[in-house]
Amino acid sequence: MTTRREFIARAGAAGLGATLGAGAGAAEAADANAPAGRPASVPFYGTHQAGIATPTQEHVHFLALDVVSDSVGDLRALLAALSAAAARLTSGEPVGPLRTGVDPPVDTGETVGLGPARLTVTVGLGPALFKPGRFGLESRRPAPLVDLPTFSGDSLQPGISNGDIAIQACAEDPQVAFHAVHNLIRLASPAAVPRWSLAGFGRTLNTRGRPTPRNILGFKEGTANIVAHDQAAFDRFVWAGAPESPAWMNGGSYMVVRRIQILLDHWDSVSLDQQERTFGRHKLSGAPLGERHEFDPIDLNKVVDGRPAISRLAHIRLASPAYNDGERILRRGYSYTDGIYDGAAGGGQLFICFQRDPRAQFIPMQTKLARGDLLNEHTEHIGSAIFACPPGAGRGGFVGEGLFA
Amino acid sequence: MTTRREFIARAGAAGLGATLGAGAGAAEAADANAPAGRPASVPFYGTHQAGIATPTQEHVHFLALDVVSDSVGDLRALLAALSAAAARLTSGEPVGPLRTGVDPPVDTGETVGLGPARLTVTVGLGPALFKPGRFGLESRRPAPLVDLPTFSGDSLQPGISNGDIAIQACAEDPQVAFHAVHNLIRLASPAAVPRWSLAGFGRTLNTRGRPTPRNILGFKEGTANIVAHDQAAFDRFVWAGAPESPAWMNGGSYMVVRRIQILLDHWDSVSLDQQERTFGRHKLSGAPLGERHEFDPIDLNKVVDGRPAISRLAHIRLASPAYNDGERILRRGYSYTDGIYDGAAGGGQLFICFQRDPRAQFIPMQTKLARGDLLNEHTEHIGSAIFACPPGAGRGGFVGEGLFA
Repeated sequence: MTTRREFIARAGAAGLGATLGAGAGAAEAADANAPAGRPASVPFYGTHQAGIATPTQEHVHFLALDVVSDSVGDLRALLAALSAAAARLTSGEPVGPLRTGVDPPVDTGETVGLGPARLTVTVGLGPALFKPGRFGLESRRPAPLVDLPTFSGDSLQPGISNGDIAIQACAEDPQVAFHAVHNLIRLASPAAVPRWSLAGFGRTLNTRGRPTPRNILGFKEGTANIVAHDQAAFDRFVWAGAPESPAWMNGGSYMVVRRIQILLDHWDSVSLDQQERTFGRHKLSGAPLGERHEFDPIDLNKVVDGRPAISRLAHIRLASPAYNDGERILRRGYSYTDGIYDGAAGGGQLFICFQRDPRAQFIPMQTKLARGDLLNEHTEHIGSAIFACPPGAGRGGFVGEGLFA
Repeated sequence: MTTRREFIARAGAAGLGATLGAGAGAAEAADANAPAGRPASVPFYGTHQAGIATPTQEHVHFLALDVVSDSVGDLRALLAALSAAAARLTSGEPVGPLRTGVDPPVDTGETVGLGPARLTVTVGLGPALFKPGRFGLESRRPAPLVDLPTFSGDSLQPGISNGDIAIQACAEDPQVAFHAVHNLIRLASPAAVPRWSLAGFGRTLNTRGRPTPRNILGFKEGTANIVAHDQAAFDRFVWAGAPESPAWMNGGSYMVVRRIQILLDHWDSVSLDQQERTFGRHKLSGAPLGERHEFDPIDLNKVVDGRPAISRLAHIRLASPAYNDGERILRRGYSYTDGIYDGAAGGGQLFICFQRDPRAQFIPMQTKLARGDLLNEHTEHIGSAIFACPPGAGRGGFVGEGLFA
C-alpha cells in the first residue's frame, strides 16, 4: 500500500496531470470563481511563493502543524510532499485519486467541479524547527526568525499560537481553501499533526482598481498598505535577502500572524468621533483626520483648533513609517467571526503580515502599538505566531529545499 | 436620547430612505456582489418571508436570541424593530445613521459600499415564547411548533441549541451576513440577548442552471431537494396553512436547525465504496447507486448482484419520500468549519430545513435516520432548534404581527 504522502510526492515529481473526474470539471468551472479580469489560477512554482504579493483573495484558511517525527528526513519528505500537493491543488487538481479500491480516497473530493478559485498555498517554517538538538538545523536558523517577545497586554492562548509549519491557503471560494487545509492535514500524517486553524474572509491588501475593504470595526483596512504592484517596496520591505537572511531564504519573507479578538460590545458603545480619534481616520471616507480623501497623505504634524489632527496615540500614527524609522510591513490579514462574545457578535482580525526582517519591522512597530494604541482598549491579542516563508520553488523542487542543502 | 430600537422602528414605519454615506455606495457596488443573472437585492416585504424559497446565497450567519424582557409589549416592539431593520438592511441601507454626535453610531458601518449582496433576513419564533405564564401567548402556539424529541444518538449542547427568536441572515458576501447579525443583536438589546450564532458557506438548495454543490464529505448535497421554482411542492410541503396551523401562520413555514459535526478523521479513513454505500449515491457523478446520472430517479427496489443497489440503511433511502409516506422537506443548509477536531479539519453541516409540519416531516424522518442511517457513524448532532417562521409582512407591518392580533 502506498501512503498518501508517498503517492503525492511521486505524483508531484513526475508532473502528473489531472486524475479521474477532475480535469473536465475543473476547466469548466474555473471561470465562475475568478473575479472579472483575473486568471482563475495562480501558479505555485516561481521565484517567490504565491500568497504574498498575490492580490488578496476573498477567503483564507490558515493552518499550523506540529511536526511529531524527530527525523530530519521525515521533515524534508513532508515539505516535499506539501509542495507537490500544493502545486496540484492550486491548478485545480485533486491531491490524488478519488477512486482507490479498498483504500480510502487520497483526495477527499469536496472541490470536484469548483476549479482552482485562485487558490494559493504559502508554506512557513516556525522557530521551533531550529531548536538545538531537534533536527540538527540550529545553524541554519535565519537571524530574523526570532521568537516574538511578549508584548504589553498580550493574552495569548498556547493552543491557538505558534506551530512548526504554517499553511496559508487563500482562495476566492471558502470550500477550496478548506479543502486544501483538510487534505494537507491528512497528507502530513503521521509526521505532523494539526495544532490550530482559522478561517477568515475579506481583504486588507489594497490592489489597483478595487475599493479598500472594511474590517468589522467598520473602518477601511489597508489604505496605506504596500500595494501589490509596488515592486520597489516589495524588494525593500518584504523579500528577505542578504545580509540579514541566509542564502536559502533569499526571495522569501517572514510572516507574523496574530489572532486579534475585537471587543465589539465595547467598540460599538463609543461615539463616531471617538472611533475616528482611535484610528486617526474618518470612518466613511477613510481620509486621515484633517484631510478630505482616502489617499491624501497622512500629515502627522497637522494641528486643528490647537490640537493634533491625528491624536498622539492614534492607530495610524503609531503604525506609520514616520514613527517607525521609515519601515513598513505588508499586511495581508482577514476578518473572522466566532459565535457570540461578551453579549455581542464575536470576531476579530486574523492579522497576517510579511516582511524582510521582523526585528526591524513588526516587533518595534507592535511594541509601540502595544504600549500606546488607543485601539488596544477594544482588542485582545489571543493568538500569535511567526514563520520563515522560504522563496518559491521551481518545478521538481519544493519550498524549503534550500534548508537541507 | 432615542434608543437604536426606537429609531429603527420609526424609520421603518416611515419608510425612510438611505441615510448618510450609504446610498451612492450601495447602488454603485450592488452589481459586483450579485451573481450573473440575479438581482442584487431580494425584497424583504412579501407574501412569504425571503430566505426560504429564495435561491440559496453563498453565505449564512445564523443567530438565536433569547428574550429577557417578560413584557409582551417589548416582544412585539422587538419584532417590529427587527422587521424594520431587516427591510433596510436587505435593500443595502444601514439600520440607522453612522454619524450621531456624542451617541454611538446606530449602524456599525462595515458594509458601507458593499451593496445588499442578496441579503435575506428570515425571522423565526421558538417554542419557549409560548410557554404558559410567560407572555400570555400559550393559546396562540401553533400545533406544528412542537418541542423536538430527543433523537437516538443526539449529543446536544444547550449553549448552541434552541432560542426564542431565530435570525437567518443569508447573503452572497459573508461580511454582509455578519453585519446583519451584528446590528440586529445591538438592536435587540436590552429586550433580548444573543444565545448562539454560527456562520456557514455553500449551498444545498438546487436551483435551475447551477451545478449541485458538494458538502465537506465530498458528496453532492441537494440533488433530490425541492427546487426553488417548484410552486406545487412548496405549497404542499413547505408553506404552513390550515388545518394544522393557526391563521397567523398561513404562508409561513417551520424551520428546524441542526448543527451536525462531521467526524472527518473517521469519514476520510473509509473506502470510496463504503462512502458511497453510506450515502446511496456515487460520489463523483451524484447518481443513485445502480444508475448513471445525477438526476436519474432513485429506484429503491433495484437489485444488483443479488443485493439491493441502495443499501437498506443508506442515507438517501431512509430520507426518501418513499420511506416517509411521500413527505419531503426543503433543505437549505450550509457547511461550516471550526478549527481542528480530533486531529482532523473540524467542520460540519448547519442543517436548516423548512416544512409545513415538522410532526409529519422532519421528526419522523429524523427518527428513522437517527436509528439507522449509516452516516451516523461519521456525524454528531451537537445543536438543535425549531422555530415557527411567520408569513411575510406587507409594508408598514412586521413579521410576527399576526401573533398579537
